[in-house]
Amino acid sequence: MKKRKLRMGMIGGGPDAFIGAVHRKAAALDGEIDLVCGAFSSNPTKSAEAGKALYLNSDRVYESYSTMIREEKKLPEGERMDFVAIVTPNHVHFDPAREALENGFHVIIDKPLTLSLGEAKKLKSIVEKSGLVLAVTHAYVGYPMVKEAKHLIKSGKLGKIRKVFVEYPQGWLATPVEKSGQKQAGWRTDPKRSGAGGAIGDIGTHAAHLAEYVSGLNIIEVCAELNAVIKGRLLDDDSAMLLRFENEVTGTLIATQVAAGEENNLKIRVYGEKGGLEWRQEEPNTLVVRSLDGPTQIYRTGLPYLCDQAKLNTRVPSGHPEGYLEAFANIYLAFSRAVRDYKPGKKLNMSKYDFPDVDEGVRGMAFVEGVVKSSKSKQKWVKI
Amino acid sequence: MKKRKLRMGMIGGGPDAFIGAVHRKAAALDGEIDLVCGAFSSNPTKSAEAGKALYLNSDRVYESYSTMIREEKKLPEGERMDFVAIVTPNHVHFDPAREALENGFHVIIDKPLTLSLGEAKKLKSIVEKSGLVLAVTHAYVGYPMVKEAKHLIKSGKLGKIRKVFVEYPQGWLATPVEKSGQKQAGWRTDPKRSGAGGAIGDIGTHAAHLAEYVSGLNIIEVCAELNAVIKGRLLDDDSAMLLRFENEVTGTLIATQVAAGEENNLKIRVYGEKGGLEWRQEEPNTLVVRSLDGPTQIYRTGLPYLCDQAKLNTRVPSGHPEGYLEAFANIYLAFSRAVRDYKPGKKLNMSKYDFPDVDEGVRGMAFVEGVVKSSKSKQKWVKI
Amino acid sequence: MKKRKLRMGMIGGGPDAFIGAVHRKAAALDGEIDLVCGAFSSNPTKSAEAGKALYLNSDRVYESYSTMIREEKKLPEGERMDFVAIVTPNHVHFDPAREALENGFHVIIDKPLTLSLGEAKKLKSIVEKSGLVLAVTHAYVGYPMVKEAKHLIKSGKLGKIRKVFVEYPQGWLATPVEKSGQKQAGWRTDPKRSGAGGAIGDIGTHAAHLAEYVSGLNIIEVCAELNAVIKGRLLDDDSAMLLRFENEVTGTLIATQVAAGEENNLKIRVYGEKGGLEWRQEEPNTLVVRSLDGPTQIYRTGLPYLCDQAKLNTRVPSGHPEGYLEAFANIYLAFSRAVRDYKPGKKLNMSKYDFPDVDEGVRGMAFVEGVVKSSKSKQKWVKI
Amino acid sequence: MKKRKLRMGMIGGGPDAFIGAVHRKAAALDGEIDLVCGAFSSNPTKSAEAGKALYLNSDRVYESYSTMIREEKKLPEGERMDFVAIVTPNHVHFDPAREALENGFHVIIDKPLTLSLGEAKKLKSIVEKSGLVLAVTHAYVGYPMVKEAKHLIKSGKLGKIRKVFVEYPQGWLATPVEKSGQKQAGWRTDPKRSGAGGAIGDIGTHAAHLAEYVSGLNIIEVCAELNAVIKGRLLDDDSAMLLRFENEVTGTLIATQVAAGEENNLKIRVYGEKGGLEWRQEEPNTLVVRSLDGPTQIYRTGLPYLCDQAKLNTRVPSGHPEGYLEAFANIYLAFSRAVRDYKPGKKLNMSKYDFPDVDEGVRGMAFVEGVVKSSKSKQKWVKI
Repeated sequence: MKKRKLRMGMIGGGPDAFIGAVHRKAAALDGEIDLVCGAFSSNPTKSAEAGKALYLNSDRVYESYSTMIREEKKLPEGERMDFVAIVTPNHVHFDPAREALENGFHVIIDKPLTLSLGEAKKLKSIVEKSGLVLAVTHAYVGYPMVKEAKHLIKSGKLGKIRKVFVEYPQGWLATPVEKSGQKQAGWRTDPKRSGAGGAIGDIGTHAAHLAEYVSGLNIIEVCAELNAVIKGRLLDDDSAMLLRFENEVTGTLIATQVAAGEENNLKIRVYGEKGGLEWRQEEPNTLVVRSLDGPTQIYRTGLPYLCDQAKLNTRVPSGHPEGYLEAFANIYLAFSRAVRDYKPGKKLNMSKYDFPDVDEGVRGMAFVEGVVKSSKSKQKWVKI
Repeated sequence: MKKRKLRMGMIGGGPDAFIGAVHRKAAALDGEIDLVCGAFSSNPTKSAEAGKALYLNSDRVYESYSTMIREEKKLPEGERMDFVAIVTPNHVHFDPAREALENGFHVIIDKPLTLSLGEAKKLKSIVEKSGLVLAVTHAYVGYPMVKEAKHLIKSGKLGKIRKVFVEYPQGWLATPVEKSGQKQAGWRTDPKRSGAGGAIGDIGTHAAHLAEYVSGLNIIEVCAELNAVIKGRLLDDDSAMLLRFENEVTGTLIATQVAAGEENNLKIRVYGEKGGLEWRQEEPNTLVVRSLDGPTQIYRTGLPYLCDQAKLNTRVPSGHPEGYLEAFANIYLAFSRAVRDYKPGKKLNMSKYDFPDVDEGVRGMAFVEGVVKSSKSKQKWVKI
Repeated sequence: MKKRKLRMGMIGGGPDAFIGAVHRKAAALDGEIDLVCGAFSSNPTKSAEAGKALYLNSDRVYESYSTMIREEKKLPEGERMDFVAIVTPNHVHFDPAREALENGFHVIIDKPLTLSLGEAKKLKSIVEKSGLVLAVTHAYVGYPMVKEAKHLIKSGKLGKIRKVFVEYPQGWLATPVEKSGQKQAGWRTDPKRSGAGGAIGDIGTHAAHLAEYVSGLNIIEVCAELNAVIKGRLLDDDSAMLLRFENEVTGTLIATQVAAGEENNLKIRVYGEKGGLEWRQEEPNTLVVRSLDGPTQIYRTGLPYLCDQAKLNTRVPSGHPEGYLEAFANIYLAFSRAVRDYKPGKKLNMSKYDFPDVDEGVRGMAFVEGVVKSSKSKQKWVKI
Repeated sequence: MKKRKLRMGMIGGGPDAFIGAVHRKAAALDGEIDLVCGAFSSNPTKSAEAGKALYLNSDRVYESYSTMIREEKKLPEGERMDFVAIVTPNHVHFDPAREALENGFHVIIDKPLTLSLGEAKKLKSIVEKSGLVLAVTHAYVGYPMVKEAKHLIKSGKLGKIRKVFVEYPQGWLATPVEKSGQKQAGWRTDPKRSGAGGAIGDIGTHAAHLAEYVSGLNIIEVCAELNAVIKGRLLDDDSAMLLRFENEVTGTLIATQVAAGEENNLKIRVYGEKGGLEWRQEEPNTLVVRSLDGPTQIYRTGLPYLCDQAKLNTRVPSGHPEGYLEAFANIYLAFSRAVRDYKPGKKLNMSKYDFPDVDEGVRGMAFVEGVVKSSKSKQKWVKI
């Protein structure tokens, strides 16, 4: 590819959206990507409005994602978009991703991958057939100290892993806000747009993904309980489960959106034979590393003793906090590297790029369906 | 009772013990109790040694608890002990407690109450028949901020309670220390001396007691998994479970002694309709109170806005940290008040004294047996 | 101005620089500004290299800032840059700023404003004559919780202010790194490029600016001691001082770069009649607010109870940390608003835009010179 | 001395007092000391009341300290008190200490040592002449992690020391509470009872003592400013100063009692060539140790890697917090060891017992007088 910025087209992310702006800022931060076009809403007026606010030329703002994909494909290589960012609710993930891939565009897509496991598996086969790049924005693994945590475990610092505790308490659904027109709450509590999982899909998948990413171990069985704490909600807003990972590792996962007063308190702890570690998203530049016999150590973003992957994902010197948008931007950067390396007909080794790929997206959907099944079962354990 | 210090006799707590010294310091702190006699070990030489180190007269240091109870009973009222403190391993709880009660001595006893639920129930009936005072040292509820947490919940600050998360990670059994002669580890990992539960009895009962004390709700069902992470251990050293409380409240409990690098990190979080709270034993003078709509509040020991029960259990001005021994001493103070109020033939209302009583001791043993049963079951839920 | 992105030209920020990349990312984050040209180094080859890495057209990458200013001025209004970002060492602040302003370009400039107070005053008169916008990137006041702190004080939450404590410990100059070719250390420890102040100019000005911004009070007298802790350093690497503010407020300021092991630990505390507040840059989304009679409150970025100015400077929901680049970007956004509002011949009211302006830049230089004077004096107090 | 508990007589500490109860609990905690007599108030009725509440025999409760000293001296060795604890306001320190020493009783005395430097020097010569033991309860150095901090510095862990920052913000005098009859505030703001220093004597001496104890370096010059922030107060309630220590070490000290909302937030930071450390009294079981090149380390009370002196001053396993009373009790234990070793006519080497002795008490008074002098001076530096 010629040395130039990558060109992004966005699907979704109109005026009322939240995650669209996150994707745009994350994509913009490092000067590697330009937003060049978009279909920001299924409502063409809203899409046009959004495009204008984003300083786009009106002829690159489309009334539907299908139109965008079709029209952009007609543009010359030096002008048309390179990839689409899909930031719509879950029920509008599969179709645009499929269309984009079938028309030769790479895809970066918000989590969870699709509405259902079935869709996820189909998408995986489409991705594989296309040879194109697809990334899922499990953005929390973009934090440098998550990279360091993974590295320390992989390098044996904690010895053989024994326990993984992950939790994700939020409080924003502690009241029935969806009834007062809060749009984010609206679709997340609606099975038609969200899928089989509520909190478990929205944030439980992040927690499970983080646990597997950091530990390097897959969850193989769950014993789960889902609750709709707010009366009348059709999807879970609260969940807790016992976990079994590979290698006889056990643990727990909590994902709740009714923990009144909590913000976005994703936290993971892993313990092995020789020590443990702890990372918390709300203070993401700190990694606590405990040991059997010495003082607890506080690893901090930006310092020389960190692993290469942590350094690669850091922009500013230590003590200058990097946050959520930077972590998100790290996913975009990793995705960009793969897109730049892409050559038609040549298979990329996705694992070297360190972004959540379609396989991780499929695992996420399998997790949601397994947990829902476990919650309904009287048996203790359900396999994933 | 004449205005004088109470007189304590100790059973157990000899040279190699840990919790005996804790009881002695807790009893001594407030100048309300004198240690006057003891049977500190089943080995008479060791008992004598201990008595000497504690500046006791040798004629009040006994070779067995039975001897002590018999001989003290013969002393005049103005001289003999008022109560015994039982600080032996679990298998030597029931008998000395029974003997003491049957001979008219009040009892304060380390947790868990007994070796088995059966013993616990028997002891309860002995206590009730005697009319005497029995306290179990679930000392963590002695902290002022635990009192405040209970008060805030009871007074409705959090609204209707929805979730209770309690966890108790320790790391000291992350290696097989019992094999190298560590006496504390020795008896705790031995079913004959510890009972059916390992970690679940040693620290799980503290966590469950704290959860019930703070929330004011009983655990009614558990879905538990116990592990012996260290190969060859006969009792669990690690556990996790889903909880169901009364009033449709749910939660989780983790109690593990193999979380390498953790010290004694007991923590509870409770969430209700209107907010949540969080307390952590390693920083016990702080209580975090979250709300739906305002800033999180940091309640601190010793300040004027706290409830009466928190104030009653505080000795020094705010900012002068009180710790574990002070919390323990608060149990002794509450027990002392009941002992001072005791009059033969008149039934005391134990609930007004705010110490863990025999009923709570029995609940602890029921918890251990329920969890052990659940862990062996393929069914999800087991009633307690 | 037509609804379009603003166009930035950069002066400095070549391959070895640190702050240049910070400015570029901050400018890019919100999609309001495009980097269109640059003179990235006094070495034309390095400038060209930098331009290429930034995907700029080579004809917009210049060999000197004078050339850039001259050539860009020739371009049509719809194409030429709108403003310059000056990210060079201190001794190359005044000249490019002057040239830019005299040629009709707005200026955003890294702190401290200039090499000396004399230059600063001259620059101020040039800015005022031009009517153009000049911002100084005291980026730490861009954090939302700093806005909230200022708001709380202004609104009387703390009552009349009494004390201001500000400190800025870093450790990166704890060894003579400038001798091993560390470029950032090199110019900062060189009076010719840095000016009369070392640590006091580099970070002391940030601390002083933050103190004045948050409290709304000017420092009027100092009693300072500067040290060159590393033998042979020509400028201070360590400083401490007593402060007198307006309104009989007193305080202290510490700025040191030899606090081994510290990262970038800028912290401010302000106390008034009714309470106090505390903010720390390394955990910037938290503001601690203490009161005389109630629990300490933890204010957090992104929550509904915050003031408008805090909300305006926040991008993502609470619990998704924003960091240094976002704070920096807030300065760029505020500057952009002024630039967009600019109309030739019409005087802008800078105070409504909430960015550090030329007056604050001049105060910073006066602070440096006052502190240096005080440090050399045997008298206790020196006026600023 | 026969193997028995030491016997304490108390001077002061009646019904309205605060520090008297602290001394009693600290003395009682470890079972080494019995309170046997007291002159608890200059008002004999109050003294009697206090004695009764403490379960003392009425014939050992005296109407004045002179009576107590005289009468106790008449008792047989096996019965009379061994030492006095002086817990009165500052103006009643010197006389009872002198009388006790001249009559052969050891002395433990609350800080500051006396009302004035003159008295302090006289007391020192009396102590030396007597050969008896005198301890001053600068209790904060009793914390195990303060011992560890001292040890790490002494052992060279931080390299040559460069900076010492110590601060002690409290908020309880942020309003004129002395006017509403608060007895603690009353005498502390009264020059006749408190001496030349207000906050600087009450808490500044603690801060200075801690700084010298931990660093092993004496303060040799100060540049201080004292304020009476509350109008009409006759003594300082707020202070800040620049410090010069031996060996070209510099630093700052803040001691204020008008930092509204602060509790008792004593904190020290020391930096050397190779790293730094930080300890905060409100979370006393944690010591933060920073280094030039590795992760920050968190040292915690009770762990095996600590120094002997830290271990000697710890009672319970790690993770079971010890607090202020335990630190205070450590001073009593160290004092007790010296008292037990005392033999008439044989000079004790006080430095081996690790309690603040009369020399440190004298230094504290010199500090107060030096700071008061500096505050009044227009010159920058005043020698101590």
